[in-house]
Amino acid sequence: MEPIYVDNNATTMVAPQVVEAMTPYFTELYGNPSSMHSFGGQVGGAIEEARAKVARLINASAGEIVFTSCGTESDSTAIRAALAANPDKRHIVTSRVEHPAIKNLYEQLSTQGYRTTYVPVNSAGELDLDYLYDNLTDGTAVVSIMWANNETGVIFPVEEIAAEVRKRGIVFHSDSVQVPGKLTIDVQANPFDMLSLSGHKLHASKGVGVLYIRKGTRFSPFMVGGHQEGGRRGGTENVASIVGLGAAAELAGEHLADGSIAKMAALRDRLEKGLLESVPRSMVNGTVGSRLPNTTSISFEYIEGEAILLMMDQLGICASSGSACTSGSLEPSHVLRAMGVPFTAAHGSIRFSLSTYNTQEEIDYIIENMPPVIARLREMSPFWEKEAV
Amino acid sequence: MEPIYVDNNATTMVAPQVVEAMTPYFTELYGNPSSMHSFGGQVGGAIEEARAKVARLINASAGEIVFTSCGTESDSTAIRAALAANPDKRHIVTSRVEHPAIKNLYEQLSTQGYRTTYVPVNSAGELDLDYLYDNLTDGTAVVSIMWANNETGVIFPVEEIAAEVRKRGIVFHSDSVQVPGKLTIDVQANPFDMLSLSGHKLHASKGVGVLYIRKGTRFSPFMVGGHQEGGRRGGTENVASIVGLGAAAELAGEHLADGSIAKMAALRDRLEKGLLESVPRSMVNGTVGSRLPNTTSISFEYIEGEAILLMMDQLGICASSGSACTSGSLEPSHVLRAMGVPFTAAHGSIRFSLSTYNTQEEIDYIIENMPPVIARLREMSPFWEKEAV
Repeated sequence: MEPIYVDNNATTMVAPQVVEAMTPYFTELYGNPSSMHSFGGQVGGAIEEARAKVARLINASAGEIVFTSCGTESDSTAIRAALAANPDKRHIVTSRVEHPAIKNLYEQLSTQGYRTTYVPVNSAGELDLDYLYDNLTDGTAVVSIMWANNETGVIFPVEEIAAEVRKRGIVFHSDSVQVPGKLTIDVQANPFDMLSLSGHKLHASKGVGVLYIRKGTRFSPFMVGGHQEGGRRGGTENVASIVGLGAAAELAGEHLADGSIAKMAALRDRLEKGLLESVPRSMVNGTVGSRLPNTTSISFEYIEGEAILLMMDQLGICASSGSACTSGSLEPSHVLRAMGVPFTAAHGSIRFSLSTYNTQEEIDYIIENMPPVIARLREMSPFWEKEAV
Repeated sequence: MEPIYVDNNATTMVAPQVVEAMTPYFTELYGNPSSMHSFGGQVGGAIEEARAKVARLINASAGEIVFTSCGTESDSTAIRAALAANPDKRHIVTSRVEHPAIKNLYEQLSTQGYRTTYVPVNSAGELDLDYLYDNLTDGTAVVSIMWANNETGVIFPVEEIAAEVRKRGIVFHSDSVQVPGKLTIDVQANPFDMLSLSGHKLHASKGVGVLYIRKGTRFSPFMVGGHQEGGRRGGTENVASIVGLGAAAELAGEHLADGSIAKMAALRDRLEKGLLESVPRSMVNGTVGSRLPNTTSISFEYIEGEAILLMMDQLGICASSGSACTSGSLEPSHVLRAMGVPFTAAHGSIRFSLSTYNTQEEIDYIIENMPPVIARLREMSPFWEKEAV
């Protein structure tokens, strides 16, 4: 049986069209785009086409797009460029619910002489904007706030935040890897300085990311080496993956326009409603009012997420108990803790993240098969009997 | 016509076996190796198999292999880890003929409070070992010397250098991206602390590199983020490329054992001899005694490398006038300048770098068609008539 894959915030299937776009660049058009010969030159042309397609998806100009190896690299590049551009400013701001790519970077910087402010969220997962603005000072170098949370799907008002932050002369960056293809991104209409995107969250391959850098933003490379990417990122370009990302960006634009996203959102709602109705003591984590159209995080009280996942796995359902990048740890998700979700619920939380490839049959299979799993696990839980019945 | 590709030090064709190994990881086994479900778990298993294969090629243990996005990232990771491990040491050493991934990094560090020693080479491209050893001090943090030069193929005695450097308690790193599959690498027999390798120089895809880190070496990550690679490199793994690199490493091991490399070396010698015999005022750059088996850099006096390349391109021959990573610049190669190659020769230098895929027919085609190209260009050169006839 094909797995039912509802873990698309962890990574996505590479779209068949994307694989098709990539394939010639392995054994046929394998030249180095930096080479003088036309065999390499045509590869360089393919990269520029991909750059234009990615730019189009977010309404940027091609020169504002730098290809990196992943979202993590884009994040590090952005933050370090902002710090290098403001050597006298030693204060940095982010949220309490960032992906480890920002969270762990900020924690490292906090041991290297940077004062760090972590903006809290409320129980609905919404950012405390007053806290954010009140903590900005003349010494603040950069504010990095994710656009949408990878675990709950909660969307932050980054457009408003960007405007407010830049008004004070502070660099604004957003880890936006969960957004393209799900929401419209328009960098002309909104004053972001830098945005991080990632190919493999968008049905392109792993191994390619994007850093959008607004024209005029002071920049220095993180990956120092050759003159690639206009001197902004050394290292031979991951040509096939870049070309694939161009195709994926095109596809994402089509999906935003053709109703696929609305259909996916309806399936997400169907899944959420189905599970909440048939499982007692279950609840959604995060405000439902402003979420990514593909994500729902549901807590099933008094049981362990890991046990749920194992039993789902046996049913052929792939989901997550939090960010894939922090799994393997027994601690409940830092995102749910920041929201104040009680331990009894946080431990039993499951993230479902859909793609446009999911079908109603798959969703109905989950709705039918998960509630008995939860019931069985609760029968084995000493806490359930004692506290909840 | 298929191009005759003799630019393998710039990048290589992805081997068909490698593409075959990669393909399932796009649309079938696309899970995130960090995920809890078995769909992701099996992908994690494939990464570990690839790690074991790469380890085998260089006689390392699997735990000493960290996958990165490219050789440039491996280089930056190694140098910055060495500096972080020795915060009080502010002197760094390298050669005058490194790839831009090290050269430009060192130049940047020299503006950030590090004293930098560049070890010169002689006219044969050989490193001045006395100069190197004489310049080591108690304040030296790291010595980074490439194993084999990408432009001339000249091999440096890194085994001896590593022993000498480590004896003094200094970290030794080598940018070795040109070596695997061409020479035997044995990290048990030789005391390297860190080595950088790159997939796309080895018939794997672009977008994947390796940093070998000897067990016990003090290390801190360059790419800070998730817990991937045992906490040594954040960012979702480029699974397909990593699996492909495993297959490429296996293939490289076979080629070292089955005589393919000796055959390639014989073709390189045939090419070199054929051109030198039929083109007057042509010479090899770099000692022929100790070179990579696939590389020859030949200077054709009194003409421009770019013009030669253009005419070769029309003949369907892909070669290079220096490092692909520095092309686009009108300056002659920093490697040839460091060797003291006269301007009139350095400007007309062409690098041929073969792979095991090259055939004798291809080599004979080059030997037959290049001399008339050189003659025609010299006819148009004012310098040739005046100075050389």
